[in-house]
Amino acid sequence: MNVGLLGVGTVGGGTYNVLKRNREEIARRAGREIKVYAVASRTHEKIRQLVGDEVEILKDPEQLVTHPNIDIVVELIGGTSAAKDLVLKAIAAGKHVVTANKALLALHGNEIFIAAQKRGVMVAFEGAVAGGIPIIKALREGLTANRIEWIAGIINGTSNFILSEMRDKGASFNDMLKEAQRRGYAEADPSFDVDGIDSAHKLTIMSAIAFGIPMQFDKAYTEGISTLTREDIRYAEELGYRIKLLGITRRANNGIELRVHPTLIPKRRLIANVEGVMNAIVVKGDAVGATLYYGAGAGADPTASAVVADLVDVTRMHTADPENRVPHLAFQPDAVRDIPILSMPEVETSYYLRMRAADRPGVLADVTRILADLEISIDAMIQKEAPEGEEATDIIILTHRIVELNANAAIAQIEALPTICGKVVRLRMEELS
Amino acid sequence: MNVGLLGVGTVGGGTYNVLKRNREEIARRAGREIKVYAVASRTHEKIRQLVGDEVEILKDPEQLVTHPNIDIVVELIGGTSAAKDLVLKAIAAGKHVVTANKALLALHGNEIFIAAQKRGVMVAFEGAVAGGIPIIKALREGLTANRIEWIAGIINGTSNFILSEMRDKGASFNDMLKEAQRRGYAEADPSFDVDGIDSAHKLTIMSAIAFGIPMQFDKAYTEGISTLTREDIRYAEELGYRIKLLGITRRANNGIELRVHPTLIPKRRLIANVEGVMNAIVVKGDAVGATLYYGAGAGADPTASAVVADLVDVTRMHTADPENRVPHLAFQPDAVRDIPILSMPEVETSYYLRMRAADRPGVLADVTRILADLEISIDAMIQKEAPEGEEATDIIILTHRIVELNANAAIAQIEALPTICGKVVRLRMEELS
Repeated sequence: MNVGLLGVGTVGGGTYNVLKRNREEIARRAGREIKVYAVASRTHEKIRQLVGDEVEILKDPEQLVTHPNIDIVVELIGGTSAAKDLVLKAIAAGKHVVTANKALLALHGNEIFIAAQKRGVMVAFEGAVAGGIPIIKALREGLTANRIEWIAGIINGTSNFILSEMRDKGASFNDMLKEAQRRGYAEADPSFDVDGIDSAHKLTIMSAIAFGIPMQFDKAYTEGISTLTREDIRYAEELGYRIKLLGITRRANNGIELRVHPTLIPKRRLIANVEGVMNAIVVKGDAVGATLYYGAGAGADPTASAVVADLVDVTRMHTADPENRVPHLAFQPDAVRDIPILSMPEVETSYYLRMRAADRPGVLADVTRILADLEISIDAMIQKEAPEGEEATDIIILTHRIVELNANAAIAQIEALPTICGKVVRLRMEELS
Repeated sequence: MNVGLLGVGTVGGGTYNVLKRNREEIARRAGREIKVYAVASRTHEKIRQLVGDEVEILKDPEQLVTHPNIDIVVELIGGTSAAKDLVLKAIAAGKHVVTANKALLALHGNEIFIAAQKRGVMVAFEGAVAGGIPIIKALREGLTANRIEWIAGIINGTSNFILSEMRDKGASFNDMLKEAQRRGYAEADPSFDVDGIDSAHKLTIMSAIAFGIPMQFDKAYTEGISTLTREDIRYAEELGYRIKLLGITRRANNGIELRVHPTLIPKRRLIANVEGVMNAIVVKGDAVGATLYYGAGAGADPTASAVVADLVDVTRMHTADPENRVPHLAFQPDAVRDIPILSMPEVETSYYLRMRAADRPGVLADVTRILADLEISIDAMIQKEAPEGEEATDIIILTHRIVELNANAAIAQIEALPTICGKVVRLRMEELS
């Protein structure tokens, strides 16, 4: 099989290196050699050093995606406009496509998969979610017996690194963001990672293949970690919880939840102990129960591991009848259903509420009355003693599961109390059991 | 596709139920219905209640494995003699086979896979290792880009439950074994689980597909947990380690390690925090790094999840050219290599050594001289103060990596010291990094 590499940056270079380094091991498994035939890149000289003389270097990516000798196009240029155009051209030219581009699929996956299905080619995308962890394969093939109930994942290493360090060192978000940038884990503009957008791309893909629904990134709710304080991380810890940026998608009675936000989870859960830049995804199926998948979610070699696994899969399946291949969205195209994505006010979860209150009798009674009137039951509550010389104190309340509409109403009423200073901090909480 | 169920016990019943309960969800993925056509069972009445009137019940299993209307035989009777005979007959009759029988594959897999390859049928076995965790798929397909370096797994829930409880409650092995039996986690004769035999079956299968070698269960080293004391669990904890029954297989310079034994692992590793009957496997690949897979390793529904996933896979692949299917042992039959399994004296690992010593000057000097003479370096050492009124004290030594031959020599010399009472407790230790 001849492969054309579109983009030879970090992951492209990693893919080339892994294919070369493990050539024999891969051929022993795949039963044939998988060979990079050509690469498209504008930085000709640097690339020549990497690939030597055996590989054709094309300046024009369009030439690569239509090259008659190429069987599989590996798209690793990132972004959504040029990448979309080139992937669709590759498909039109009858090439199979392997991509690690989560934004592309979350935004344009539906269109791309329809084009691929019509043309009878495969689009494989293991590298698009959680780097080297074979989570797409687990969801599309390993758990086919199950009705998936929910997925919860730490799917952005940068954010998880920052949160791990904030907890470990009692440091602020801004200081740990700088530390992440210093180590090369975060971009100069970190919003993509820390605001949850990257996580939402990956979550959108997992949600589609778990529930048999189209990609609906525009309906995903995203909330990042930049406003998290060390106080809340510490209070959560005291209560037996850890705060992680989770992507959560759940099958509810009236639709599908699709949301990324900082989440309190019990410390004893395995996923609560995933530290640093590592990723982990918990999948709850009705037959298998909860399974967890853990590993490096980014980086040249880990992502290359996923890209090359896709190349082996495509190589194996390219002679099979298209209807016997694993469907792109895990479910047969005619079985994909447009189940609505719930808006946040409809979503049911538990809450961590922190408020700053005057250290005066009657405040707690006011707050708990508001909650009781809205039928919100309290799971735990702590009131801190006011520090020497201060007149305000922190009250933390953990609620049972309620719809967000009610939580919002309660928060508005609590904030209107004259004895409450400023905003109520509201964090969502999941037992993941 | 018509399925014949051989054995309708716990897993067989679970498989039937999952196929029925999730019929629509599975068909939406597989693109066709997967239907139990017949079951073979001697307990006719009980089975009739389960399967109703739609399914044929055959008294004679031979009739099932050769039944002209059956496409896939699911072997769930367990054991190795009747099961082997029936599986080979099913293969001879041109049926695909799905099995969750780890003993059968660890002992007779080589023969079974050769027969299947000759006849052009598939033998799928996801349920044979770690229940519902799709670890076979991860190893055979998800990590094909990697040169696998090692695998370490908690692959026996019973043992892990006992060890978790011993640590939690400071209880003895015997008491927690009884607790496991009371809860139905352990058999009346628990040796299969607690002596590491069950783990060794599963490890043998994973080793073969990770390294492209034949199944060699007879060369696996097994050591169980029945002689573990709470003292050692407590000392390990003090030193920052946890003791788990691990199946470990590693690619060494001169061969493959294949061993099951209680192992000290750093507490901070995710796998050290896998508690109760849950299973988890860490796979280290050269490209992806360490990935971990966690879930329920046994039980009706979790194992059924794996069996049904295999049924979907077989259904998808049955029209494909046999050479384009995933090879049984992950590597192409002609690429499987007979790399030697190392004997334990050749294996390199670190050690936890605990000895009971007279509380007298010079003892430590004697012990450390023995280690130094054998070029064994010490990573950590603690000497407990002798309790009031006692004259002997515990010395615990953690070594760096050495070959077991040297560890054995050191232990023999230490035990010969007049100041050392009784045997040296020797536990192996792995960093898993």
